[in-house]
Amino acid sequence: MDDVAIVGVGQSAFTRKSGVSIRELCFDAFKEAMTGLDLTNKDIDASITCSAPEYDKQRTPSGLISEYLELTPSPAFYIESVCSSSTTGLRVAYSLIKSGLHRVVAVIGFQKMSELSSRDSAERMGRGADIMWEAPFGISMPSGYAMFAQAHMAQFGTTVEQLARVRVKNASYGAKNPKATYRKEVTLEEVLTSAPVATPLKMFDACANADGASCIIVASADVAKKVSKIPIWIAGLGAATDTMSMSGRKSLTSLSCAKDAAAQAYKMAGVKPQDIDVAEVHDCFTISEILAYEDLGFAKPGEGARLVDEKQTYVDGKIPVNVDGGLLSKGHPVGATGGSQMRTIVRQLRGEATEAQVKNAEIGLVHNIGGVGQYGNVVILRR
Amino acid sequence: MDDVAIVGVGQSAFTRKSGVSIRELCFDAFKEAMTGLDLTNKDIDASITCSAPEYDKQRTPSGLISEYLELTPSPAFYIESVCSSSTTGLRVAYSLIKSGLHRVVAVIGFQKMSELSSRDSAERMGRGADIMWEAPFGISMPSGYAMFAQAHMAQFGTTVEQLARVRVKNASYGAKNPKATYRKEVTLEEVLTSAPVATPLKMFDACANADGASCIIVASADVAKKVSKIPIWIAGLGAATDTMSMSGRKSLTSLSCAKDAAAQAYKMAGVKPQDIDVAEVHDCFTISEILAYEDLGFAKPGEGARLVDEKQTYVDGKIPVNVDGGLLSKGHPVGATGGSQMRTIVRQLRGEATEAQVKNAEIGLVHNIGGVGQYGNVVILRR
Repeated sequence: MDDVAIVGVGQSAFTRKSGVSIRELCFDAFKEAMTGLDLTNKDIDASITCSAPEYDKQRTPSGLISEYLELTPSPAFYIESVCSSSTTGLRVAYSLIKSGLHRVVAVIGFQKMSELSSRDSAERMGRGADIMWEAPFGISMPSGYAMFAQAHMAQFGTTVEQLARVRVKNASYGAKNPKATYRKEVTLEEVLTSAPVATPLKMFDACANADGASCIIVASADVAKKVSKIPIWIAGLGAATDTMSMSGRKSLTSLSCAKDAAAQAYKMAGVKPQDIDVAEVHDCFTISEILAYEDLGFAKPGEGARLVDEKQTYVDGKIPVNVDGGLLSKGHPVGATGGSQMRTIVRQLRGEATEAQVKNAEIGLVHNIGGVGQYGNVVILRR
Repeated sequence: MDDVAIVGVGQSAFTRKSGVSIRELCFDAFKEAMTGLDLTNKDIDASITCSAPEYDKQRTPSGLISEYLELTPSPAFYIESVCSSSTTGLRVAYSLIKSGLHRVVAVIGFQKMSELSSRDSAERMGRGADIMWEAPFGISMPSGYAMFAQAHMAQFGTTVEQLARVRVKNASYGAKNPKATYRKEVTLEEVLTSAPVATPLKMFDACANADGASCIIVASADVAKKVSKIPIWIAGLGAATDTMSMSGRKSLTSLSCAKDAAAQAYKMAGVKPQDIDVAEVHDCFTISEILAYEDLGFAKPGEGARLVDEKQTYVDGKIPVNVDGGLLSKGHPVGATGGSQMRTIVRQLRGEATEAQVKNAEIGLVHNIGGVGQYGNVVILRR
């Protein structure tokens, strides 16, 4: 399956208020992704811009980014599946290359959220739910994930302390990540006493809006072997969608889109959960990481929280997860997040993650979720 | 090149004010596309929703449409390149299938523009240009295309009467199209005396905002041969992007994105302009159709207007163009337009276009442009 590889990865700093335009954010990510590659802008024969719409005033940004990065006249277009936009971009990049239409594709994820007030931002977020039947009744990211947390606590006895331990772990790694918004360790006490957001989730159980960009350069095998010292192969891809409506869900203690996507990706890659050396999962809230452990098969249903209790998801544990700080530390510039996760895994598989390197990592996994469990993408990468 | 085919096409009525939600519009298009196919919803293993953002209040509509059409849990995501969104969707559908990731993909284009006032709609449209450096100075669709018209008139002597003849032709076919917004012939006099929009373009030189949806069902060869009596093969695909900024353009009398895309599509299909039996081109304004004749090689640079003078683009002419009425008659529900164009060509190649059938049409072409000449897609279909 050595058909398509990631050859370059980049990320801007993720911050609460970048003070720069989206084109400048994307430039930072693109520049890092191209560094050290034997490629010029002219070699990039398509670009996919990924972001969630309506967080900044620019509509239809793909042409803007394409011109600014000097990628014109190669085709540029825009893809989104909210928070999982850039892993959806990777899926499309893979298929554009595998189909023979293109050889080198840039997947550029970004979001600038600081132009909006918190109120406006929450309003936009709400309109990501069904605006006719659910958003008016309060379904949004925090309330939706709070329902998952309540259900998990009721069904399996998961505790708020266990949720908080996810943040403590991720903050311990975020402290070492120079591109994270929050580069500070936090204590269990600090998480538990932070302001309530949507019970049982508190401020420190939630990731923050951020400005930022990421860039992944994807190439066909022949190009990859030529331009990159350590191409990272796309071994498995999975994607699934669950109902937009929360009322349509069959379970509130598992994201079926993630389970379906994981099953596809494991099958395509020919690996099992226990073969994964390092993973990035979509910890938009602390509960999300617990759900991910279970949906990905790292733990049995209901037993996810134990993994973090036992420190099995720390860098020297059985299955290190979010050892770059996760969304909880890095911040969550929606469209850029999946790309940032892929960057972390690529750096781990190349052995370049000096901040928190997992020893001999050969196979890595990215789990990226859009909306309140609507869109699930799982990517398995192999050195 | 018989790898991927269009097996089903559908379109809702295009109207100025549908009075229904986007999900209902998409349902109408999907239902027509699935009619007569030996396929169920369960066979559709991915869906791509295509629309320009911010014309209706629903953000991230792909999950909503997926649930309403009962396509969950197959992956659903959203693609846009403004007015060329659904032909970009076709390009991605082709590659998802050719790559082996999927076998049957629904490309669903829609737009509901009637929820906005004209003023709000114009504001949204403006934000499709660079909001920092060009939109504030008045670049929008009408002003941009007016510049092209002025340049073409100055350089080649094209006249307002010639522009008007494009509308007269398209209206004569729109009158026969039961799904068009405007089903009425118009006279040269009516076009020339209609209200000014952006000199030299008048009201009747411009297409209108509309509500509507389209759906294209794309399948791998093995599926296509099984489920469809007359699969229509995707023979050629081309896509290119020109600078977002008007100031970056090398020419104002040609759209280089269209020329680049056409060259790619002709090459992939192994055909020449004179091999095309019937074409749909992006006549968002009358001048756009003249530019398309030239960019596609149906006429030499500067000689496009003669084709319509000589009635060569009427149904019994050398190269029939927009014999469904074009955007000028149908209306332009942005994300749905490319799908509607492809529906027309598929019906022509199947010999089902009873309103205005081109005799023995074997090879058809779709030319779909996004923005003010930013995004060019050309699709060549073959019976």
